[in-house]
Amino acid sequence: MLYEFFEKVYALEKQGKGIIKLNVGEPDWKPSKQAVRTANEALRNGKTNYGSAAGEMQLREKLAELHGCKPSNIVITPGSKFGIHTLLMLSLSKGDSITFFSPHWTAYELMCKSLGAELRIVKLSLEDKWKADVSKIDISERTKFIILNSPCNPTSQAMEEKEEKELIESARKKGVHVIADDAYRDLCFDGRKERQLEEGLIIANSFSKTFGMTGWRIGYMVAPEEIAKRLISHIQITVTNVPVFLQLGAARALEDKKKIADKVRRVCRRRAGIAIKTIGDLTAIAKPNAGFYIFPKLLGKMDGLQFANLLLEQGVAIAPGAAFGDFQQHVRISLCAEEKKLALALGVIRNMLSKAE
Amino acid sequence: MLYEFFEKVYALEKQGKGIIKLNVGEPDWKPSKQAVRTANEALRNGKTNYGSAAGEMQLREKLAELHGCKPSNIVITPGSKFGIHTLLMLSLSKGDSITFFSPHWTAYELMCKSLGAELRIVKLSLEDKWKADVSKIDISERTKFIILNSPCNPTSQAMEEKEEKELIESARKKGVHVIADDAYRDLCFDGRKERQLEEGLIIANSFSKTFGMTGWRIGYMVAPEEIAKRLISHIQITVTNVPVFLQLGAARALEDKKKIADKVRRVCRRRAGIAIKTIGDLTAIAKPNAGFYIFPKLLGKMDGLQFANLLLEQGVAIAPGAAFGDFQQHVRISLCAEEKKLALALGVIRNMLSKAE
Repeated sequence: MLYEFFEKVYALEKQGKGIIKLNVGEPDWKPSKQAVRTANEALRNGKTNYGSAAGEMQLREKLAELHGCKPSNIVITPGSKFGIHTLLMLSLSKGDSITFFSPHWTAYELMCKSLGAELRIVKLSLEDKWKADVSKIDISERTKFIILNSPCNPTSQAMEEKEEKELIESARKKGVHVIADDAYRDLCFDGRKERQLEEGLIIANSFSKTFGMTGWRIGYMVAPEEIAKRLISHIQITVTNVPVFLQLGAARALEDKKKIADKVRRVCRRRAGIAIKTIGDLTAIAKPNAGFYIFPKLLGKMDGLQFANLLLEQGVAIAPGAAFGDFQQHVRISLCAEEKKLALALGVIRNMLSKAE
Repeated sequence: MLYEFFEKVYALEKQGKGIIKLNVGEPDWKPSKQAVRTANEALRNGKTNYGSAAGEMQLREKLAELHGCKPSNIVITPGSKFGIHTLLMLSLSKGDSITFFSPHWTAYELMCKSLGAELRIVKLSLEDKWKADVSKIDISERTKFIILNSPCNPTSQAMEEKEEKELIESARKKGVHVIADDAYRDLCFDGRKERQLEEGLIIANSFSKTFGMTGWRIGYMVAPEEIAKRLISHIQITVTNVPVFLQLGAARALEDKKKIADKVRRVCRRRAGIAIKTIGDLTAIAKPNAGFYIFPKLLGKMDGLQFANLLLEQGVAIAPGAAFGDFQQHVRISLCAEEKKLALALGVIRNMLSKAE
């Protein structure tokens, strides 16, 4: 439903309709000039051959250093979503289940359904500020993975690191892997250290959000070697490899990671403040501690989809909450637009919220 | 086994060993300057956002025109292999079988095995010059697809167009789709027209070979609309989309397709002649009518893998025949190197063939 809504937005844009797109999880900051220049030069200089399915060694080495592991634990993928999908596809047997907290990223549910996995959704509540009670997670014999998306898309709440550790620890004791989907981790307002690979953990990460490189389609998995090998074999029979010239650009981006992450983290924190200030009083909302989404609950009679459709007519695209689980009264607003535009869009949203009450 | 061999070659290269790589199906011609420039500009100008999972409309429109169909029949994929894998994955039920001729491209077999499909391999013989007798294809109730790879990787034999039509016709009558994997079709020495979409047919195609764009990872599927929609849904939950800036480059390459295809077709024909002349008398071989491979049978006691391993020590990489079916005595030589290098490598191969006898 989310992606259908997105395609509707693309179609309207194609018709020339001016839309402020706060529906997609897509930063308005651009890839660094150095990364673009490196990729462009590599493309121009003919780095356009097939490459290793595992990824370019220089990129894997850099990532291994960040995550406290070996290059053989790193697999470069066309986005972290592809990495997670591949991992699930290769690992699931009939009857296996996947556990994750909800609100949750749409793609987890779509993947599990398309792969025939059972969903074990642990529903969180706005009243508890979306806090997860790790002790409530029920790990059964058929639990294959627990997906930990912290910070979470759509709530932009990061779990306390202590709780994350408890979760990984309790899963490990039962022989279950936690998949940490860390697409937004660099955007924790408290500026966390890189997640280190440990037993019982698989990390999925992306260049999309921190580096503003969504359209490059480049991410990576950090996994025990035997799992990494299976991912690589699957890449061999599907996408072959991520374009080498793009990997070289990504490696260049990584050199400035600290500077870039510090900067975009500040931007995210400021925008979260602006959003809460603009529409906080007309919705029920938990203040984000990371990332660039807000996930308010509408207080009127209108549900999230109706609200999103009406708002689209006003030239502002947001995502209906139902796309993220059993949250029909919510909407997800991605605070990703140049700030004058963002203020304008938030104004339009405020206006419609006032009317909807 | 093929991809393991390839990774071995990558590792040797990484160690700084100079290797003439005739193992990979990778043209030595480069993408057109115009295509590179267009992609470079698009990357520099920030065409680095998420795009439609179906692909960029301007590229789909161009491809639809080529293949006599609507843009809604076109799906842009990260390589044609990904498109074929996705199609099989979404379509196969337990007990379904896939039929293809052998020698066959390694990936078909690996895909089918990883997806649990039954292989129905129709073995061709060198004595018949790898000609397929279409009437011998047995289409059962469990036949899901017939893969037609004409010209064929590894034999570089294209089926007569009349026979192709017969095959598609007889499959259609039984409600079975033929997947035409047309990666090499532009390289038929007789210069064929673009394949048109028709009932019972799904076309997989690639920018890799004709345009020398292997490392860009861009291909496409031409399929009935309801199948195209399912492919698009799968792209949404895996790779999201092929990078837009690369699609724009591919669209630019397409504008010069006739000129480019004419040129590389002449190159292929000339190289096939050189190869036959150099090693034809020391092997059993069918003269290609397309593409850039030869698939000779070794006449000595050594099998293809032994020969390939020994040859690798001499700095020339080729692929063992066993990777393409029950053809242990064969090797696949990809005639893709700058021609002085190619002559040198063929000389090394001739030398080893003489010794091996």
